[in-house]
Amino acid sequence: MFKKILIANRGEIALRIIRTCREMGIKTVAVYSTADAESLHVRFADEAVCIGPPPSNLSYLKISNIIAAAEITNADAIHPGYGFLAENSKFSKICQEHNIKFIGASPEMIDQMGDKASARATMMAAGVPCIPGSEGLLKDYADCLKTAKGMGFPVMLKATAGGGGKGMRAVMKEENLQTAWDSARQESAAAFGNDGMYMEKLILEPRHIEIQVVGDSTGKACHLSERDCSIQRRHQKLTEETPSPFMTDKLRKQMGDAAVKAAEFIKYEGAGTVEFLVDKHRNFYFMEMNTRIQVEHPITEQVIDYDLIREQILVAAGIPLSGKNYFPKLHSIECRINAEDPYNDFRPSPGKITNLHAPGGHGVRIDTHVYSGYSIPPNYDSMIAKLITTAQTREEAISKMKRALDEFVIEGVKTTIPFHRQLMDHPDYIDGNYTTKFMEDWKMDAIKEE
Amino acid sequence: MFKKILIANRGEIALRIIRTCREMGIKTVAVYSTADAESLHVRFADEAVCIGPPPSNLSYLKISNIIAAAEITNADAIHPGYGFLAENSKFSKICQEHNIKFIGASPEMIDQMGDKASARATMMAAGVPCIPGSEGLLKDYADCLKTAKGMGFPVMLKATAGGGGKGMRAVMKEENLQTAWDSARQESAAAFGNDGMYMEKLILEPRHIEIQVVGDSTGKACHLSERDCSIQRRHQKLTEETPSPFMTDKLRKQMGDAAVKAAEFIKYEGAGTVEFLVDKHRNFYFMEMNTRIQVEHPITEQVIDYDLIREQILVAAGIPLSGKNYFPKLHSIECRINAEDPYNDFRPSPGKITNLHAPGGHGVRIDTHVYSGYSIPPNYDSMIAKLITTAQTREEAISKMKRALDEFVIEGVKTTIPFHRQLMDHPDYIDGNYTTKFMEDWKMDAIKEE
Repeated sequence: MFKKILIANRGEIALRIIRTCREMGIKTVAVYSTADAESLHVRFADEAVCIGPPPSNLSYLKISNIIAAAEITNADAIHPGYGFLAENSKFSKICQEHNIKFIGASPEMIDQMGDKASARATMMAAGVPCIPGSEGLLKDYADCLKTAKGMGFPVMLKATAGGGGKGMRAVMKEENLQTAWDSARQESAAAFGNDGMYMEKLILEPRHIEIQVVGDSTGKACHLSERDCSIQRRHQKLTEETPSPFMTDKLRKQMGDAAVKAAEFIKYEGAGTVEFLVDKHRNFYFMEMNTRIQVEHPITEQVIDYDLIREQILVAAGIPLSGKNYFPKLHSIECRINAEDPYNDFRPSPGKITNLHAPGGHGVRIDTHVYSGYSIPPNYDSMIAKLITTAQTREEAISKMKRALDEFVIEGVKTTIPFHRQLMDHPDYIDGNYTTKFMEDWKMDAIKEE
Repeated sequence: MFKKILIANRGEIALRIIRTCREMGIKTVAVYSTADAESLHVRFADEAVCIGPPPSNLSYLKISNIIAAAEITNADAIHPGYGFLAENSKFSKICQEHNIKFIGASPEMIDQMGDKASARATMMAAGVPCIPGSEGLLKDYADCLKTAKGMGFPVMLKATAGGGGKGMRAVMKEENLQTAWDSARQESAAAFGNDGMYMEKLILEPRHIEIQVVGDSTGKACHLSERDCSIQRRHQKLTEETPSPFMTDKLRKQMGDAAVKAAEFIKYEGAGTVEFLVDKHRNFYFMEMNTRIQVEHPITEQVIDYDLIREQILVAAGIPLSGKNYFPKLHSIECRINAEDPYNDFRPSPGKITNLHAPGGHGVRIDTHVYSGYSIPPNYDSMIAKLITTAQTREEAISKMKRALDEFVIEGVKTTIPFHRQLMDHPDYIDGNYTTKFMEDWKMDAIKEE
């Protein structure tokens, strides 16, 4: 087993990893930027090394400084958390070269799953359902029309050089295709100097449902069921739950089998997540695979009594899995508490937390790196806490979340607590009737006067 | 279902009950003494009524004020928590007379189980093993000797008028009996003007293991397995765990069956706890039955995913139980965090909490009514928080407790955190090798310099 793990991250996930290491009797090294000197991950680690100032490319993304910190402190493994260098194949490779175990995917696997085209090709080869699409670029409008008719409307035209929605067109029926084709190519040519287009089937109002997998060094993988992450705002997840209210036993088996197939096909080692889009007919399509721990991993832990960080460490140390799939016995919901103003378009609200009181009691878990008196630096992600409730039924988990949100006091900054509180009362949320489009129509109720 | 429940208690248990009521959509009324105006139970209840000043006989024990508060606020039920009026048959009766449902035992049941002699007689009639004892008072020394020989040494001589250890003698062998008999009678006569003596078998170094039961209004009961509460100081429990490290499947079945038999014999309704002493040969003896929720109930909740307060409310509303017994799937430990100085004979340390930061993360639950800035009044019980950790194994639950205790920051008052932290490292605790005598030899290690 590892003697000392360096955590190449900050915030709640750094603290999360330190906690499991302490419980396993493994020493920890925190790294931190000058903006994070007062963060709890620095206090709770056995050692802490400052690796530079913000922004992140001078500290949390600065591979040389992190490797130096690991070498100075004699760490024999690095846990990257999520974000930053967690899916950076170069970092994974450099760790290998320095004889430091990277608690995550191999460089090859990161590259294979990090590149969209390569991931899609791999998953198709593995027999995992992918969103139907054109084979490479569309030659001309005739090819475009033929392809669209082949996969059936609606379709999505996408510029190969695209980004930020530019050169993208959703086309609902054939009569709109020509106009979309012309305008998308024009837009793409103007924006990127490249008018190459490809096409994908458009999944209308999909669910975002992901399957947690863990693979070990023997090439065996198992799944830990799903998480529904459809409540998103601009592709940022806001709240997640497991089981998905849209799930059936049959679909869970199909999606679980597909995710295990995906993981075993690439001999995936470690904890990973296979993300799918699911349409209203419960067809599911591979979207991407995240070769790291996810923000929302606690809800899975809650319903199957499993410590995923511990499992990552065990697998990285070469210990084989039981090989058993896990199914949810309870219901768990996570609300991401961000320092953002939900009444003002979720604008970030960094600053000093002047008072903090966290809820507690039966079925309540909190993962946070902040405390009363902590100053949230403006340099990073605005998430300051994850509030997780767990109960025997979805209805009870929602009730518990409401009362926990009502108890949660964070003063000095704006937070997304009022958003989550309103969400928990929304009829469509209560009915489990939501897709990734849910937030497009979201409007906050007026602020209640106390 | 009840529309509004008044909680006739304070501190963490009042908050605990309010939380479940909120989750069930039941309105709550807090009552509080003037010393508790700033307590969280007052803030989180829907309504709050001041019922007088400390000490408790002017407020939390003042039945007329509590009934008046219930009537003013139209509460249709009262939850008494533990302590105060929870096992007061007069209060239970007055609630009945005022058409307010008492969420606890009936007056008859409280009396039956509250009186030691009556409880013992009832349990013997039910066929539940009791500590062997003399039938009533010993007539003379000859009777004393005969009784002792009949049950076998060691025995305990007890003054019928006794209290505070006066008139009690543990007698290990026959040759010491005459001296003990004479001196105990003398002492008792001097102290109480009464030299009547009775005898019980002395259980050497017993375990205190209790079985949680729940009975419903149909007369059916089930058990929710055990809690080991052997770590006690002057009969005050300090930390509890489930499963008991001393437990076997066979013993759990025997004790569970006995507890259910006890509950069903008296047609017990509600949540109750049957406390047993268990000797080193795993013989178990009925000690007493608590007709209320226990402080340590959360560890049971944690290992069986069951909300005991919810269950109390459901049963009180006449909803029948599933009738199923529950067995622990996980391991859970509770440490009672008291505002006491473990370095100074556990002397109470009331005062203002100047800084509080609670641990969190996977497998950590906290039940507390205090917060940063809260002043602990000197009038009540010194318990300020319950820290509960839960994991797949006992070893992991201990590791988790250690790291949670290490994270727990309470400044401004002394607390028992250092005691618990040392306990978790004690070889006998780690081995699960402890009895109710454990604390007699306890000595704190020196305070570590930071």
